[in-house]
Amino acid sequence: MTLPRIGVFDSGVGGLTVLKAMSEQFPAHYLYFGDTARLPYGTKSAETVARYAIGATRFLEAQNIDLLVIACNTATALAFPLIQQAAHVPVVGVVEPGAAMAAELSKSRAAIVIATEATVSSHAYRDALQRHGVAAHEKACPLFVPLVEEGWIEHPVTEQVARIYLGEALAQAPQQADVLVLACTHYPLIAPLLRRIAPEHMQIVDSAESTARAVKKIIEKHPTLSPTAGDKGGAPAQGLDEENQGVILSEVRLPLAAAERSRRTPMDAKVSPAEHRTFRFYVTDSTDKFKRLATRFLGRQVDHVEHVDLGG
Amino acid sequence: MTLPRIGVFDSGVGGLTVLKAMSEQFPAHYLYFGDTARLPYGTKSAETVARYAIGATRFLEAQNIDLLVIACNTATALAFPLIQQAAHVPVVGVVEPGAAMAAELSKSRAAIVIATEATVSSHAYRDALQRHGVAAHEKACPLFVPLVEEGWIEHPVTEQVARIYLGEALAQAPQQADVLVLACTHYPLIAPLLRRIAPEHMQIVDSAESTARAVKKIIEKHPTLSPTAGDKGGAPAQGLDEENQGVILSEVRLPLAAAERSRRTPMDAKVSPAEHRTFRFYVTDSTDKFKRLATRFLGRQVDHVEHVDLGG
Repeated sequence: MTLPRIGVFDSGVGGLTVLKAMSEQFPAHYLYFGDTARLPYGTKSAETVARYAIGATRFLEAQNIDLLVIACNTATALAFPLIQQAAHVPVVGVVEPGAAMAAELSKSRAAIVIATEATVSSHAYRDALQRHGVAAHEKACPLFVPLVEEGWIEHPVTEQVARIYLGEALAQAPQQADVLVLACTHYPLIAPLLRRIAPEHMQIVDSAESTARAVKKIIEKHPTLSPTAGDKGGAPAQGLDEENQGVILSEVRLPLAAAERSRRTPMDAKVSPAEHRTFRFYVTDSTDKFKRLATRFLGRQVDHVEHVDLGG
Repeated sequence: MTLPRIGVFDSGVGGLTVLKAMSEQFPAHYLYFGDTARLPYGTKSAETVARYAIGATRFLEAQNIDLLVIACNTATALAFPLIQQAAHVPVVGVVEPGAAMAAELSKSRAAIVIATEATVSSHAYRDALQRHGVAAHEKACPLFVPLVEEGWIEHPVTEQVARIYLGEALAQAPQQADVLVLACTHYPLIAPLLRRIAPEHMQIVDSAESTARAVKKIIEKHPTLSPTAGDKGGAPAQGLDEENQGVILSEVRLPLAAAERSRRTPMDAKVSPAEHRTFRFYVTDSTDKFKRLATRFLGRQVDHVEHVDLGG
């Protein structure tokens, strides 16, 4: 039996909320790429974001992934068709799953979408929700990402900022809006705070959670990707050469019981053998800062992160 | 008479406070380069910042500058020796002028330095102040840049954040500290707010202002750079080809009286002929966002901005 190899791409640490949601829902080999040298994408143009995302796609494909998750709302919003066109594996973005979930939940057919400036400017969520028959009011909340990265998750300043942003959004949105879409992968960390501030009747859709569910469905539908399928051959994936062994957390292609006996990492300590997950992390900038933030995002220690230089 | 050609480099819009301070102090042809596709530098490693800064230096040198100002605390703190080594023109950073000014003002020989995370981690200000016999307590204030870019200059949230950051800094710094160094080029915009919050006895040193004074002194000391020196030849500078004419605000190499008669731009409308300044702006990402922020930073309309692709 071979687990699917899931490439997860984001501009930084935000996509770790998608990785966390996925790893809670299904076993896989997860390869996370954070383009930290060039973050944030939220302030950049579509052309720039597309160029960066395609570079990362090429890198992850060279690591032999079976499926690519663009765990970045900005990259999905601005460059999804271009990435999909350039990729040789199935690609899942975060916009459509979030929009589909919002459409499933909304009775009034009106939603508020909060996101970075670039995601809002792209109107990707408005368009996706419109296809599902839901009207959307989009609101940029550029201070949420730096507040989350500062670690001010449950903090009076974050609460004050959230009250201002949500207050403005509610004043401008159609009154009957009954869903709040967290259209940035950083926002799940402040979801409890937003839950307290948002009107009680509003349901909150977390795009990380929605994306994890969408990926799970794809894996279950595609026998070659499903963990219950037969072994795909067991040949070592590209990039798993001797030099890389030191940074592989638990890259195993042995039968799972054997792998379980051979080693366990902090990342999968609570996971049963049948539910095996492995994690590899690649970043384009300082690994130290990534480790610190990743530990906060994943809620557990991240020790081994590899630096990658894509040039530029 | 030929005005000096001053290259000004920053990761984004912050360096515009240095540009503004210089243009208020002396006439010159200013060429501003904002590496907006790769901002912020404040979260990046020294290696990455050095690579980016040297790329920008090469670009500005190709525009025939006489002197380069690294109007970016992070780039100066992390990469100044490397940039200076790579450059073919004199290079001025923002750290040493700010430190020298703080040393001039401090009676107690103790200062507080507020900056981005990367500038603080580099300890460039601590080291520079130490050379001047001043002890420094450095405090990272990562939320100030996004707050300024959100336009929350005089805003209760910014005030609350400033009270938290300054409170923490004052609690940790030597009690006798009598100078507060604004070691990030974004901070001059919230200087009035910081002035109200900081203890009355503390003097505030603005590194943009200090750098402008340092550059003025260099120009006055070097006859070939001084505006009162004879014409350097008058040949058109590199890069001033026909295609670029549309974006040149007031690039003139005619005698100033003739230039004055021929045209005036909004940027120099209040400047007398003898005090002529010209401005060119280059950015690596969206020109629209830059124009909007630049107008706020410079306190006047910026209409013509050129997009440059340095790759990556």
